[in-house]
Amino acid sequence: VRGVVLQGPREITVEQVPDARLPGPDGAVITIEHTAICGSDLHLYHDAITGTGVQLGHEFIGTVHEVGPLVRSIKTGDRVLVSGVIGCGQCATCRAGQPALCQRNQSGIFGTGPDLPGGQAEAVGVPAADAFTLVIPDGINPEQAVLLTDILPTGFLGAQRADIAPGGSVAVIGLGPVGIMALQSSLLYSPARVFAIDADPARLARAARLGAETVDASDGTAVAKVMEATSGLGVTSVIEAVGADQTIIDALGMVAPGGTVSIVGVNLSMDMAYPMGLAFLKSLTVRATVAAIPGTWDALVPLLQTGRLVLDPVFTHHLPLSAAAEAYRIFDAHEDGVLKVLLDPTA
Amino acid sequence: VRGVVLQGPREITVEQVPDARLPGPDGAVITIEHTAICGSDLHLYHDAITGTGVQLGHEFIGTVHEVGPLVRSIKTGDRVLVSGVIGCGQCATCRAGQPALCQRNQSGIFGTGPDLPGGQAEAVGVPAADAFTLVIPDGINPEQAVLLTDILPTGFLGAQRADIAPGGSVAVIGLGPVGIMALQSSLLYSPARVFAIDADPARLARAARLGAETVDASDGTAVAKVMEATSGLGVTSVIEAVGADQTIIDALGMVAPGGTVSIVGVNLSMDMAYPMGLAFLKSLTVRATVAAIPGTWDALVPLLQTGRLVLDPVFTHHLPLSAAAEAYRIFDAHEDGVLKVLLDPTA
Amino acid sequence: VRGVVLQGPREITVEQVPDARLPGPDGAVITIEHTAICGSDLHLYHDAITGTGVQLGHEFIGTVHEVGPLVRSIKTGDRVLVSGVIGCGQCATCRAGQPALCQRNQSGIFGTGPDLPGGQAEAVGVPAADAFTLVIPDGINPEQAVLLTDILPTGFLGAQRADIAPGGSVAVIGLGPVGIMALQSSLLYSPARVFAIDADPARLARAARLGAETVDASDGTAVAKVMEATSGLGVTSVIEAVGADQTIIDALGMVAPGGTVSIVGVNLSMDMAYPMGLAFLKSLTVRATVAAIPGTWDALVPLLQTGRLVLDPVFTHHLPLSAAAEAYRIFDAHEDGVLKVLLDPTA
Amino acid sequence: VRGVVLQGPREITVEQVPDARLPGPDGAVITIEHTAICGSDLHLYHDAITGTGVQLGHEFIGTVHEVGPLVRSIKTGDRVLVSGVIGCGQCATCRAGQPALCQRNQSGIFGTGPDLPGGQAEAVGVPAADAFTLVIPDGINPEQAVLLTDILPTGFLGAQRADIAPGGSVAVIGLGPVGIMALQSSLLYSPARVFAIDADPARLARAARLGAETVDASDGTAVAKVMEATSGLGVTSVIEAVGADQTIIDALGMVAPGGTVSIVGVNLSMDMAYPMGLAFLKSLTVRATVAAIPGTWDALVPLLQTGRLVLDPVFTHHLPLSAAAEAYRIFDAHEDGVLKVLLDPTA
Repeated sequence: VRGVVLQGPREITVEQVPDARLPGPDGAVITIEHTAICGSDLHLYHDAITGTGVQLGHEFIGTVHEVGPLVRSIKTGDRVLVSGVIGCGQCATCRAGQPALCQRNQSGIFGTGPDLPGGQAEAVGVPAADAFTLVIPDGINPEQAVLLTDILPTGFLGAQRADIAPGGSVAVIGLGPVGIMALQSSLLYSPARVFAIDADPARLARAARLGAETVDASDGTAVAKVMEATSGLGVTSVIEAVGADQTIIDALGMVAPGGTVSIVGVNLSMDMAYPMGLAFLKSLTVRATVAAIPGTWDALVPLLQTGRLVLDPVFTHHLPLSAAAEAYRIFDAHEDGVLKVLLDPTA
Repeated sequence: VRGVVLQGPREITVEQVPDARLPGPDGAVITIEHTAICGSDLHLYHDAITGTGVQLGHEFIGTVHEVGPLVRSIKTGDRVLVSGVIGCGQCATCRAGQPALCQRNQSGIFGTGPDLPGGQAEAVGVPAADAFTLVIPDGINPEQAVLLTDILPTGFLGAQRADIAPGGSVAVIGLGPVGIMALQSSLLYSPARVFAIDADPARLARAARLGAETVDASDGTAVAKVMEATSGLGVTSVIEAVGADQTIIDALGMVAPGGTVSIVGVNLSMDMAYPMGLAFLKSLTVRATVAAIPGTWDALVPLLQTGRLVLDPVFTHHLPLSAAAEAYRIFDAHEDGVLKVLLDPTA
Repeated sequence: VRGVVLQGPREITVEQVPDARLPGPDGAVITIEHTAICGSDLHLYHDAITGTGVQLGHEFIGTVHEVGPLVRSIKTGDRVLVSGVIGCGQCATCRAGQPALCQRNQSGIFGTGPDLPGGQAEAVGVPAADAFTLVIPDGINPEQAVLLTDILPTGFLGAQRADIAPGGSVAVIGLGPVGIMALQSSLLYSPARVFAIDADPARLARAARLGAETVDASDGTAVAKVMEATSGLGVTSVIEAVGADQTIIDALGMVAPGGTVSIVGVNLSMDMAYPMGLAFLKSLTVRATVAAIPGTWDALVPLLQTGRLVLDPVFTHHLPLSAAAEAYRIFDAHEDGVLKVLLDPTA
Repeated sequence: VRGVVLQGPREITVEQVPDARLPGPDGAVITIEHTAICGSDLHLYHDAITGTGVQLGHEFIGTVHEVGPLVRSIKTGDRVLVSGVIGCGQCATCRAGQPALCQRNQSGIFGTGPDLPGGQAEAVGVPAADAFTLVIPDGINPEQAVLLTDILPTGFLGAQRADIAPGGSVAVIGLGPVGIMALQSSLLYSPARVFAIDADPARLARAARLGAETVDASDGTAVAKVMEATSGLGVTSVIEAVGADQTIIDALGMVAPGGTVSIVGVNLSMDMAYPMGLAFLKSLTVRATVAAIPGTWDALVPLLQTGRLVLDPVFTHHLPLSAAAEAYRIFDAHEDGVLKVLLDPTA
């Protein structure tokens, strides 16, 4: 089968990769219909931190081609979505839908190494299929299904772990695809005020359309603007969806004493210069979150089905899998108003 | 001053009552501008259970006429709203805005006895004014202010104590004024499905307009209809806003195993025939709630100010205080499409 | 194999029953080593409400004799304990260890009907074995293991769902085996005061030894005594472990405004005379609970292993399975200081 | 009156300071009977970061000498304890006993500046006395009362905010006075395992006596030891009671994925080298806490009164106020087995 392979920093090819195989008796092989590029894929794209030769991609949906003998919840021919993060599938946290916290230390992300090939391909093997796949429910369209594999759960958990109470206030820093998911998810918790912060005018305009008070961060004064808008108190919750050191520092700067900062932006620094004194003097709660994806489906699927959560469109670009190198280039360069790219492995 | 006095079952007069006096050094005297009749006033109206000669009314707003020497948060001339339920004002629960749970057993409701004359009058004395009054915030109009004195907090607490999670399901039984407040408050918790249950077509039509799935209870099959609509599982939360034995029994019938029933309807029976076996076999949580009014203002005021909570109009009738007898009669008889009555003591 | 069979009210025999069989590909057959009689078995014993010919027993441990092809977590020869309550094993609540809330309505209790034969026998078939069995962990002795199949989880959940906060107060009504488990579990939540209520002097003496303030209920004044001891406020939490109408009414009488009553006593009345007015005026939370057994093992097993929870001995009588009729008679008659009976199927 | 004054780094005098005065109509003047030196006083002692000439001390109890006209809860002659942290006394968080989060930005600590003279003196003025003093309850001895002014609430909040569940595991890093309070408080939440970490053998011996598993940190391998003792999983909660960069880093290293780190050690760095990548990959919650002192009294006082919380003695040294310079020197130098010093202003 064909797959997207990272050959080195900013070097992508689409080529024949080994056929997808059952990863074990509890696994399945999925023929992929749609697969997306995630902002976190760019970390690999830039630096090849996971090594070269990796088959990329952790956001994908498709049709079940084969199941192992222990699989019970899906069968050949089912159309399924797959959690981008998986684990052993049997420990208490995996059973509770939180593979990122797998108690057997088997947590992993598709498309980050040789043991778990990615889903930007024509087919892929999925371990522990009962725990990490979901037959696409009635009323969920393919784009929603792809978003349920990673970034909607990520944004939703970012909101859930931000301790937003009805009547409170929240700021969302970073309005890329995950930030948009976080912004829309934060509204589910009924804050009285929602600030949306970014430096990009188009992204701010979208946030304004979704009902947020926008804060232009392009001049570096986002913290001051939020403090002024809140009479010097700050907001009770902040969701950080960038992952840069400065935006994390800003988050701690604009949150009110006793408040919560919820970080879903990827920041892998082991020695970030961190304002611990601010966290202490303000008695803050600071959470970071790798998405516990399947654990969110019970909440998100019904909200999408009944239309109480209407996701703003994020897939600006649809390209064939064969154009993956160009897709990565456009996405990385922020060209052409790109927000998120969907690849079609059948083309 | 003039006030509304309950002379006996279904017998109301408007007459001179003793001038309002400071109830103590921490009290205030309020000149009343707007005062509403509450559904719970009808309990007194029907049976005069609190005795005759009682000056009625616990929903009112007005202007501060006089304050005692210990009062710090309001001053003469301020326009204020007053909690319909009060307590000692100094214990931990009163300080936390929950006078219904006063730890000194001094919880009381205006207009229910001689010690605490009601606010359907030209003026009234308010004890512990720092704890139980609020200067009407910018952006809150008089009708909203009156609703903040009782029924909006009641409906909001009903929703808050119903354990509604994003993506869950809720049924609201009874769509009178408190039920409408509960229905709108339940939406703040982002259930995927909201069922609104009543026997009155006009009330159901309003609920449909507010986004609920309506269930006509006029044929006595509300439980069956909810069970069918939920594939036999029931809803995860029910808010009961009637207070009748049967609607409470229905609530336990339609809630899912492990779910929560939140009762805000007034039911004072000491020997209601109760399906404890159902509560046990379903492992239910059943809460009843007398409104902890001031404790909700921090959440509700900002939601009203920013328009994230837009209350559907409930005041169908505006009458002068002098017409109180007629107002009670209309309200009790459900005449003329009445939903809620506002009285004007200045007329 | 031999099993205990209910022939009719108060009529027990031990006789040959059909050999235990795999209930399906996800099931197991267990050779039973120890099995206990539960207080709830007496409901069946008294009235045969589940019909005659039922093979009794839902508290048992043993050795795995055979497993179906889908079973992954246990193997032949393992010594296991089994949840007394089971469900489908695959829905979200079953996976979370709460089969009493099975979303496929397949919740069931061993030993209550022909479809699920009981464990007071030499062997029994266990459905969905991955979800409902646990290899007996190191450091857990057989009596502890039997208690983990039902009454310790029941008592623990009763305490967990009583909203006990550090420094709060709790009353436990009923000091039978489940009540003792609830009392010891309540101490895990560090109330400042613990009242233990029963009419039996020996049971009160045991509770006193465990550190509780005892309240003799034999004169019918338990509520008054608790109110006096708490200066008229009542306790913040009550665990009801009897299941009688009057003890439930007492629980509502002695709990403080805003408090929680947690019912683990079995009460199956569909028209109990219930003081709803009291629940309303006090703004109470009232929970009833069928044990969500496997969901408690992660907390209880480590507490038993490290000795931070040291269970007071409850098995006063050890008898061979062949003496089951006599065992039920003694247990039912409260003869000989009996608290709980363990049966040995190998004898 | 005499008071302890910080003249410069490591330079303490006891001298005449201005007489204590009412800080306003809601304030009180307290004649001090006992006052302690806090570990956080050493931050000032070392560096005089708050400037020179400051009258030190925020842990004190005494007798009410005078009250302002608005004070209601205490009167002249009452023996009271005083919260070491105060605020405006009137906002919602102050009323809820959390002056560290004062919504009017008036949070302050006694003894840290000219506006709020400290309690290492013969007398001191206390603002907002209703909110921040407590008449010493029956059954509370003077040493307990002093501990309730700061370090017991601090340790208790550290435990409360560590998300310890029954059967979980916790590590306490640092076994000074606050660490001991945190260790004893953590036991209130019934973890199955409690690790106590320090480099001092005497402190470890005390922790062992209190029931903890001790980890000697003197060789810098505390993280490895905890990981080994937990089969590589780590502990679900960590309470950090040192405030050093390295112990905070260690806390993140030994906590399990999905776990919580609760920091009560004082760390005021604005650019600490922080392992954010670890926090992200483990999906951690990290809280820091300035004590919300009065909010803890409702829980702690009853626990002390009934003996369910028996504090291990921490006051190793009792000295007259006049010996304050020597007291600071001994405390800072860890001489003579000092753990905590109590000063007597009457001597």
